[in-house]
Amino acid sequence: MDTLYIHRAPVRFTHTDPAGYVFFPRFFEMFQAAVEDWFTHCLGLNYAEQILTHGVGFPTAHTECDFKRPCRLGEVLELTVVLEKLGRSSFTLRFDGHVGGELRLTARSVLVAIEMVHGRPRSIGAQLRERLERYLSLCREAGTRD
Amino acid sequence: MDTLYIHRAPVRFTHTDPAGYVFFPRFFEMFQAAVEDWFTHCLGLNYAEQILTHGVGFPTAHTECDFKRPCRLGEVLELTVVLEKLGRSSFTLRFDGHVGGELRLTARSVLVAIEMVHGRPRSIGAQLRERLERYLSLCREAGTRD
Amino acid sequence: MDTLYIHRAPVRFTHTDPAGYVFFPRFFEMFQAAVEDWFTHCLGLNYAEQILTHGVGFPTAHTECDFKRPCRLGEVLELTVVLEKLGRSSFTLRFDGHVGGELRLTARSVLVAIEMVHGRPRSIGAQLRERLERYLSLCREAGTRD
Amino acid sequence: MDTLYIHRAPVRFTHTDPAGYVFFPRFFEMFQAAVEDWFTHCLGLNYAEQILTHGVGFPTAHTECDFKRPCRLGEVLELTVVLEKLGRSSFTLRFDGHVGGELRLTARSVLVAIEMVHGRPRSIGAQLRERLERYLSLCREAGTRD
Repeated sequence: MDTLYIHRAPVRFTHTDPAGYVFFPRFFEMFQAAVEDWFTHCLGLNYAEQILTHGVGFPTAHTECDFKRPCRLGEVLELTVVLEKLGRSSFTLRFDGHVGGELRLTARSVLVAIEMVHGRPRSIGAQLRERLERYLSLCREAGTRD
Repeated sequence: MDTLYIHRAPVRFTHTDPAGYVFFPRFFEMFQAAVEDWFTHCLGLNYAEQILTHGVGFPTAHTECDFKRPCRLGEVLELTVVLEKLGRSSFTLRFDGHVGGELRLTARSVLVAIEMVHGRPRSIGAQLRERLERYLSLCREAGTRD
Repeated sequence: MDTLYIHRAPVRFTHTDPAGYVFFPRFFEMFQAAVEDWFTHCLGLNYAEQILTHGVGFPTAHTECDFKRPCRLGEVLELTVVLEKLGRSSFTLRFDGHVGGELRLTARSVLVAIEMVHGRPRSIGAQLRERLERYLSLCREAGTRD
Repeated sequence: MDTLYIHRAPVRFTHTDPAGYVFFPRFFEMFQAAVEDWFTHCLGLNYAEQILTHGVGFPTAHTECDFKRPCRLGEVLELTVVLEKLGRSSFTLRFDGHVGGELRLTARSVLVAIEMVHGRPRSIGAQLRERLERYLSLCREAGTRD
């Protein structure tokens, strides 16, 4: 964990609509995939284990996205995962989506830690919080550099 | 066209996640379905014909959603389609999602009219504009009544 | 329950691919929707309640489909649900998909009753079995008439 | 191209249902992804270019799948792509899906080469045919070895 995490999402037939572009709900599936891989491969906490073993889920409570330019079959969308804010039981992520250096979309999601068993929010566990704090620092440093 | 259009979306197995709730990207598919049926059944302009016959598409340029309470398998989400703003080539829709009278989500999307052949924005055609203006009036009246 | 159940699936933007036709995995989502509505509206047993209240699921153990002709945005696919075979813990459904009287696809799925809690097969409950037997008779009569 | 192509599909939240298992239509999306990557990374012919540049599509005319054991969030499904048969305008693929060496599913699909412009079948182009023939030999050798 020393650079911002970038999730690479190949644009597939599955994602594209009659205009040949990604159908917008598919982007939210890509953001979800980005979160899962960021947990597992960057934060070092297996996403599936959080849910299946620890019974902690991370549903999206709010999301918003600006689609600046369409993405086409065969392109690879690179989603940079930026942690913008860290609360007691929630955190805010930004996704900057580029193809070949060109900005295609910017999105922002608020994820809330919940107990899967009853669906209510819970505080973010100590281990995850420590990783998120480190990633938050990393994002702030990256932000100052820009 | 004399009341606000409500699209009924049954929550299916297809939509639900391991917590038994609708997986959030699926809501955006429901919003898309609401737009299609609102065009066809409320505005009186067949959505598919717009694309296939007239070559005019309506991609979503921006969307945002607050997920207030989860939706469960077997429930029917009622999406009220509210036209908030009408521009030259775009319009802003709000979707209020209720189940049994309880607010579950509020979303807002900006749709842009484009020529399918090159993907660039175009002005909204006269017939569609006339229908949208009528619906806009209806939404404003409904808003004042509340 | 006196005629074969027909599920009407409007072909939406969500379903279509860059060729303007339904992307084939989406048909399987339509079959699932057909099963859910057939349970609830034809057999008279609420599908969601089977899962959420009784803890009985009906995963698909086998499926096959012949895609004879493509389906296009704006069409309505009519899926006739035919019960072909009824076993102890499983049953076989056929889906005949027509648009305007023209056969577009034929599919066949084997569904297995399982206990959701451990995922293992269980015998079909008495009430469901009684309904399935009636529907099976109906399908056989319809078959002889053809 | 000297070993059978294996496509690795991570099981994500996007794929799973209220039982915590992959919802069966999602497997067909994985098969489609396997085909795309097999074209691009194994046959050496970019899948997207076939469609966007050459106007040749490969819809699935028939598919069938035996779901032997469910797949769970966090697992990685390894899909081995086996070419079973090569015709004038179509070919038959088998997908053997394993997780950690355990067989979870076997599927078979017939793909047809079509001209995107009118949707009718066409003969498989010379370059693709040559690659498919080589892959077919490879599959037959692998079969004899088993």
